Amino acid sequence: MRIPFEELKAEFKRVLIKLNFSEDKADVCAQVFAENSRDGVYTHGLNRFPTFVRYIKEGVIKAQNEPTLVNDFGAMEQWDGNLGAGIINALFCMDRAISLAKENGIGCVAIRNTNHWMRGGTYAWQAAEAGYIGINFTNTIANVAPWGGTTPTLGNNPLVISVPRKDGHVVLDMAISQFSIGKILQYQNYGEQLPVPGGYDENGKLSTDPTVILESKRVLPVGFWKGSGLIMVLDLLATVLSQGRSTKQITDQAMETGVSQVFIAIKPQSGQQTDDLIEEIINFTKSSQLADADKPVSYPGENTLRTRERNLKEGVLIDEKIWEEVKAI
Amino acid sequence: MRIPFEELKAEFKRVLIKLNFSEDKADVCAQVFAENSRDGVYTHGLNRFPTFVRYIKEGVIKAQNEPTLVNDFGAMEQWDGNLGAGIINALFCMDRAISLAKENGIGCVAIRNTNHWMRGGTYAWQAAEAGYIGINFTNTIANVAPWGGTTPTLGNNPLVISVPRKDGHVVLDMAISQFSIGKILQYQNYGEQLPVPGGYDENGKLSTDPTVILESKRVLPVGFWKGSGLIMVLDLLATVLSQGRSTKQITDQAMETGVSQVFIAIKPQSGQQTDDLIEEIINFTKSSQLADADKPVSYPGENTLRTRERNLKEGVLIDEKIWEEVKAI
Repeated sequence: MRIPFEELKAEFKRVLIKLNFSEDKADVCAQVFAENSRDGVYTHGLNRFPTFVRYIKEGVIKAQNEPTLVNDFGAMEQWDGNLGAGIINALFCMDRAISLAKENGIGCVAIRNTNHWMRGGTYAWQAAEAGYIGINFTNTIANVAPWGGTTPTLGNNPLVISVPRKDGHVVLDMAISQFSIGKILQYQNYGEQLPVPGGYDENGKLSTDPTVILESKRVLPVGFWKGSGLIMVLDLLATVLSQGRSTKQITDQAMETGVSQVFIAIKPQSGQQTDDLIEEIINFTKSSQLADADKPVSYPGENTLRTRERNLKEGVLIDEKIWEEVKAI
Repeated sequence: MRIPFEELKAEFKRVLIKLNFSEDKADVCAQVFAENSRDGVYTHGLNRFPTFVRYIKEGVIKAQNEPTLVNDFGAMEQWDGNLGAGIINALFCMDRAISLAKENGIGCVAIRNTNHWMRGGTYAWQAAEAGYIGINFTNTIANVAPWGGTTPTLGNNPLVISVPRKDGHVVLDMAISQFSIGKILQYQNYGEQLPVPGGYDENGKLSTDPTVILESKRVLPVGFWKGSGLIMVLDLLATVLSQGRSTKQITDQAMETGVSQVFIAIKPQSGQQTDDLIEEIINFTKSSQLADADKPVSYPGENTLRTRERNLKEGVLIDEKIWEEVKAI
């Protein structure tokens, strides 16, 4: 089923206002949730909205709270999210990082005690829209086993990087696991196998079966030992720079809350020379001989734009069951 | 064969002075080459030294040149490497990034027109030794096919991240391909298969055979489409921020020279709280139930320290043939 973007957003906003969100905050959060579905990240759009509502009702997310400054080191700042809505806090942090980059060339904001930001790409798109390079990452609850281990002691910390571009920003939004948990759940819902191995079965063998992987709780990090190391380092950076909770501490709690995040913005020199350099890299990458003539090489974010265009034109693809659930709130 | 670290370094220094390096520069470059072998990165220590010498003799590396400042944006600077020795330029850039981070909390230096830095980890160790978080990456000649393509249009751009730690820094030094070209060559030299698939054969099937992969020129990026996207984004960042050569332009030349690199340093809050956070993350990661009781989970850089210790105690492991080659220069 498909529904207009504005209808989706209006419904989210109605619910959030009912939950005592201010008009402004309800509008911003509703916009981001609707955009996530619009861009094809259904797992962090409509599909995640009921969980967001539950977290608010249970007081895990304290929507009235604002972030407060902890330390100002010049081009780098440390904030406390005060357990406010993750989307609001993250938009605020990337905005601060952009302001710092405007003054200093580069800016970095680390925030502790915040909540799930939904789609990491949202904040990299934000930086790119403002003409800045964006880099952001978060830690999470433990759900990935480290290289050499079989039980999860690492988060599925995503790494997000954007480069502003006239004809469509380049936005890499990658969970360090081969597939995000949301994506594996999606394959499971559709009764499909993963296209490449995404984790292990109970016997430690690589598997493409979403159910088997979800049961073993052993999702595969990209590049085996490499992704395992990268996840750990991102947790170290987020935790040390924010002086906040690590994956360990988040996992010790009953629910995934109070996470640590980092936002970096860098100001590129704008102009024809930069535009040309970017196009040259994209065109050269695409010039690779194709494995399948019908499947062109794409740059990160390119397919998102295609999905966005279709969802805006034909209506945003939604899961009817979840949609009815949201309308009943 | 094993030889003392100091003997290895002295030999490198002798050769470099013969090639008209200043006493200082010869000492620094010899130290780094010897350290790379000492730390087990043989591909970028002794084994790479003859290529370095050839590049100097052919005038590709202009050892007398110093980097010059192009733009100062506050906490971010842009430098021109003037085709000087990559090691000297990279050490200089990370040092500048550290100075900028000391003043501003975070510092970033982009350099264009520089040469191969040998081991990326060298500069992240440098930041960690100074008490700073280090992040650095470089672009390279095209040697990785993008996701969906069969001919190389992406570099094997490594990403390096370090976190300073009392009992041994955490240093992630990862080529975005599953195995670096140097590592694949090493497996080929030893007549061994790769432990996990590292690329494709001529028919587009995943392979663990180093010879087959080197022939097809299709090494596997970590995480299939994810690593492919990450490589492209790192090339975009290095090229745009330095306004230097992209992988495309480097590939158009006869030799890999004039590459673009980025160095970021961030100042963490030092003290017991930070130390505790780091230990907590490492200990929790290591607490995962082991797949093989004899193979503990390790943090990035941990095995390097073990190799370093052994090579310092018993002598640095060297390839005799290459050693004789160097002594004959």
